[in-house]
Amino acid sequence: MADSPVSGPARAVGTVALRWHGHSLELLDQRLLPLEEQWIALDDADGVARSIRDMVVRGAPAIGISAAYGMALAARQARGEQWRDHIRQALKVLAASRPTAVNLFWALQRMEQVVEGCATAEQARHRLAEEAVAIHEEDMAANLAMAEHAVGVMQPEQPLSVLTHCNTGALATGGYGTALGVIRRLHEKALLSKVYADETRPWLQGSRLTAWELSREGIPVTLNADGAAAAILAQGDVRWVVVGADRITANGDVANKIGTYSLAVLARHHRVGFMVVAPSSTVDMQLPSGRDIPIEEREATEVREVRGVALAPAGVDVFNPVFDVTPASLIDAIVTEKGVVRNPGPEAMKALFG
Amino acid sequence: MADSPVSGPARAVGTVALRWHGHSLELLDQRLLPLEEQWIALDDADGVARSIRDMVVRGAPAIGISAAYGMALAARQARGEQWRDHIRQALKVLAASRPTAVNLFWALQRMEQVVEGCATAEQARHRLAEEAVAIHEEDMAANLAMAEHAVGVMQPEQPLSVLTHCNTGALATGGYGTALGVIRRLHEKALLSKVYADETRPWLQGSRLTAWELSREGIPVTLNADGAAAAILAQGDVRWVVVGADRITANGDVANKIGTYSLAVLARHHRVGFMVVAPSSTVDMQLPSGRDIPIEEREATEVREVRGVALAPAGVDVFNPVFDVTPASLIDAIVTEKGVVRNPGPEAMKALFG
Repeated sequence: MADSPVSGPARAVGTVALRWHGHSLELLDQRLLPLEEQWIALDDADGVARSIRDMVVRGAPAIGISAAYGMALAARQARGEQWRDHIRQALKVLAASRPTAVNLFWALQRMEQVVEGCATAEQARHRLAEEAVAIHEEDMAANLAMAEHAVGVMQPEQPLSVLTHCNTGALATGGYGTALGVIRRLHEKALLSKVYADETRPWLQGSRLTAWELSREGIPVTLNADGAAAAILAQGDVRWVVVGADRITANGDVANKIGTYSLAVLARHHRVGFMVVAPSSTVDMQLPSGRDIPIEEREATEVREVRGVALAPAGVDVFNPVFDVTPASLIDAIVTEKGVVRNPGPEAMKALFG
Repeated sequence: MADSPVSGPARAVGTVALRWHGHSLELLDQRLLPLEEQWIALDDADGVARSIRDMVVRGAPAIGISAAYGMALAARQARGEQWRDHIRQALKVLAASRPTAVNLFWALQRMEQVVEGCATAEQARHRLAEEAVAIHEEDMAANLAMAEHAVGVMQPEQPLSVLTHCNTGALATGGYGTALGVIRRLHEKALLSKVYADETRPWLQGSRLTAWELSREGIPVTLNADGAAAAILAQGDVRWVVVGADRITANGDVANKIGTYSLAVLARHHRVGFMVVAPSSTVDMQLPSGRDIPIEEREATEVREVRGVALAPAGVDVFNPVFDVTPASLIDAIVTEKGVVRNPGPEAMKALFG
């Protein structure tokens, strides 16, 4: 395309959550999955910010990449003397879209540094698009590296079954996925027997996204209610529980989607391995431990309703924490693109991320 | 009422699932809760059998009581020479309504013995109604006795919080409830701080029934996704997990709603008490252990859909076991109306139920 100096990453295979066309960004509307596959085309930063806020796109890495492309779109519309102000304004709007997403700020900081180094609008237009694609490609490369590290930790001699939680796949990242990337890699190597996917109440990322993403690629997935995970582990054929992370603290504690901590306790009880897979940008060496992470709660309607259908008495009190904290002592391995921390603790974390 | 020689139990208080009027049985349609409170009036055994099969009424004790009243209704219609055959035919229809419900057969056996001892249709009509009310009253009395035993085990010195699973309340029994009966008793004694209720996927008995039953009686209930139970126990204010049972084997293993076993592992990990509350008719001393209980699976649509709304890709594989087995070693106390088995095992079980 004459109008797109930089195209999207060439390595994208299978399911993707976003497509970059140089002059526009297309996002798969994840709110409608698995019932409808509808793409939303965006040509400015405001539209991207709105899509992040409204959960068209979710998953920390995918949000960061979308925001970077939003900056590239802003640069395309920056003209005249005020071009730099226009881009800075877009950065503010994008930064306000999901205030707690760490990868969002990390991506925007990278884009801001590029803007500061540009002398002209034309230069910014070109270099911001390049940088957004680089962020996207690096995320995919990190996922592929994590998958290789993880398979090295598992060392399966024959096909094994795993259990996962939430959605950590191509839909949550620039492609391939973190924990689901490991599962994809096992499948590619013919070393995967079966994936059990927790439906992951209340948002049902497991039913809506993971089951959709895996089944359309022919990866054998079995969906289960979250409360059935213990019975599945008791059956004895699951060897690893594999999950992602929202934040990892300096001692190796992991904050992740509510229900993760439950799985870690159950895995230990059943002598099943528990593995966390996340990019190193998830590691926050400034926080000493998981006790320092405040537990955020979301609205009660997430538990009281599903797709607008009431399940519980109106107004009944609800406890709806977004994530929980799994102590490092219950984790067998934290896998990042930089390497693996086995039996995580402060020293082992410092050795890799210090 | 001239037409009703025996009225329903006088002690029914608060929420009830069934009302006996002597000439008809009214069942609260639990499929519509919590959105609608609609009663279905039945005047013959066929209607009662259909209501059991279609889940208008659920919960093992409530099913047994309903079937007993169904027999009483059959006796009212039994006339002429063939009166005994008419009642026996009703028994067959009722027995076929839920083939796996233990309390159903237990109740029908009691009713059958009464029929065999009757000389006339008139006598059967009177004595079957008496027996059904007796079964109903005994169930309520057992629930009250269990609640007292349970509070004796807990010995709370100040109000405590508990966590429960599924629905084991007035809606599942003749009134008051088993595990929820204990919670009611704590509340009556001003010894209950708060109840956390697992929503209990896939059927959502916690959201639909427990939250409704407790909140309408002013008992402080907080609803949570099943995956949040671990985070709740980690907070430290829950002292007991209290659940019901579908079947208890000779060594003290307990089969109950899927998700119960998960709670037992989590309770042990957090040093929280784990109590099973069920009538002695739930104890099956013929089965040596939980390994002898086959794991029944229900249809995939229970996990793929909620109230007919699709949540997952059509046709995706689902593992949907109805119950799981909690080993006796994870149970602190089994409470029945006959007494309490602490740290259950074969010897302790035999001492009380042998």
